[in-house]
Amino acid sequence: MKYVHRVDGKVQLRDIDSSQDGGMIEDDARKETSRLGKELEELQELLFAAGMHSLLVVLQGRDTAGKDGTIRGLSRYLNIQGVKVKGFKVPTPEEIGHDFLWRVHPHAPQKGMVSIFNRSHYEDVLVVRVHNLAPEGAWKKRYDQINEFEQLLVENGTILVKLCLHISKDEQKERLLEREQDATKSWKLSVGDWKEREFWDDYTDAYDVALSKCSPNHAPWYVVAADRKWYRDLAITHALVESLRPYKDGWLKKLEGMGKVALADLQEFRAGQG
Amino acid sequence: MKYVHRVDGKVQLRDIDSSQDGGMIEDDARKETSRLGKELEELQELLFAAGMHSLLVVLQGRDTAGKDGTIRGLSRYLNIQGVKVKGFKVPTPEEIGHDFLWRVHPHAPQKGMVSIFNRSHYEDVLVVRVHNLAPEGAWKKRYDQINEFEQLLVENGTILVKLCLHISKDEQKERLLEREQDATKSWKLSVGDWKEREFWDDYTDAYDVALSKCSPNHAPWYVVAADRKWYRDLAITHALVESLRPYKDGWLKKLEGMGKVALADLQEFRAGQG
Repeated sequence: MKYVHRVDGKVQLRDIDSSQDGGMIEDDARKETSRLGKELEELQELLFAAGMHSLLVVLQGRDTAGKDGTIRGLSRYLNIQGVKVKGFKVPTPEEIGHDFLWRVHPHAPQKGMVSIFNRSHYEDVLVVRVHNLAPEGAWKKRYDQINEFEQLLVENGTILVKLCLHISKDEQKERLLEREQDATKSWKLSVGDWKEREFWDDYTDAYDVALSKCSPNHAPWYVVAADRKWYRDLAITHALVESLRPYKDGWLKKLEGMGKVALADLQEFRAGQG
Repeated sequence: MKYVHRVDGKVQLRDIDSSQDGGMIEDDARKETSRLGKELEELQELLFAAGMHSLLVVLQGRDTAGKDGTIRGLSRYLNIQGVKVKGFKVPTPEEIGHDFLWRVHPHAPQKGMVSIFNRSHYEDVLVVRVHNLAPEGAWKKRYDQINEFEQLLVENGTILVKLCLHISKDEQKERLLEREQDATKSWKLSVGDWKEREFWDDYTDAYDVALSKCSPNHAPWYVVAADRKWYRDLAITHALVESLRPYKDGWLKKLEGMGKVALADLQEFRAGQG
């Protein structure tokens, strides 16, 4: 993929420049995003109509990395009728009383549909690891458990695209301060966001391990340079289009077959009507 | 509302011209829709952030009236993170085993959220009445039951917008024939759609009764002239904006208050750090 880093083996977020722009200027990038967005719209329609596969987009990233903004951007191109967004927050006591994938599995997308996870089961090896919210013996097993769970989804026809939004510590500070200035956004402020910043390096380590351990060939992570929102949107739209494109011919073939059956039915009905 | 017919008392669909265009040309209408779409986007963001109300859009209309197309159009402006679309199809045996609102109630929108119903509980006084799928004694009570159910939603902070997409019999024929011609759409063909056309007048009667009986002041129906897709999209976007606009000041006031609390928390946190 052109604008994102596919994780292949060991990765260190420190080595990836979160401010990169692919040598593009904003205006050109936005035009290209819009062009790709139209292709994404068409591909989603075919995915829906053919009903052979589903698409699961997993979004991870630190606070203010742009998960909500990414979803807003994708909203311009995706048909809401075929999309479900699921946010994963602090688990409830009922959820904690189950294995960590119990609350996730019901939201796996149905064939023809798109699901977007705003945070995900990866929180259980990120925040949980950083703050020791579960015994080490428990979260250490989760990397393998995640790989097996994701393999199940993929083998059942899910196209899985995992996107890690990567921002710098300085960029996060700027975004937090911006919220204080903006009267229509200051309600979003949370002291917790500033407190979590103290654990910046611990999160970096936790991300490095998760991305490295959970990037098998069938479900690699993609790191998205997200300091520049317009570059982030381009990179993500491109990654989704590239992920769906290989299936297009198969979907068209299926639809052609379904169309023939429908037309034959209709002919028979009309003949019966005399 | 400017572009739709608010039902107020008895209505007859026959009296409403489904091909009307408000004296506009397509290009101007599309520009106006796009302008209103941006306002809708802002209003949805405030609805979400303030969390005081929810929005429920009920879409009804005959086959090919443009329910899917309407949702596609709204997708361009609504943030998928705050929207759920629920389609109501032929009920399952489990659903039939309950009262007719049992399968609907769980999909009422949460505060801050938008739900769009693609068909709805009104099918239970439309197709059910036309094809005698329930005893008359049962469906005759449903008009009152619907009014009471909708009042419950409205009194709990739901902004309810009920839109009936109105097309002519000729326009429907054209759209059905178009599907036969278009190789990427012919899979959508269903003999059932042609069979249902035989009951055109029965449906008209059923709609007239439902719209007339279920348009109390707190939840009126709006009839949308839908022969021209660009006029339909304009009318619907306008109706939604007009329905949300009266709440805007209240939402802004709430957000201002929430922001003040958040800023105060932050100040206290920083003082403690100092």
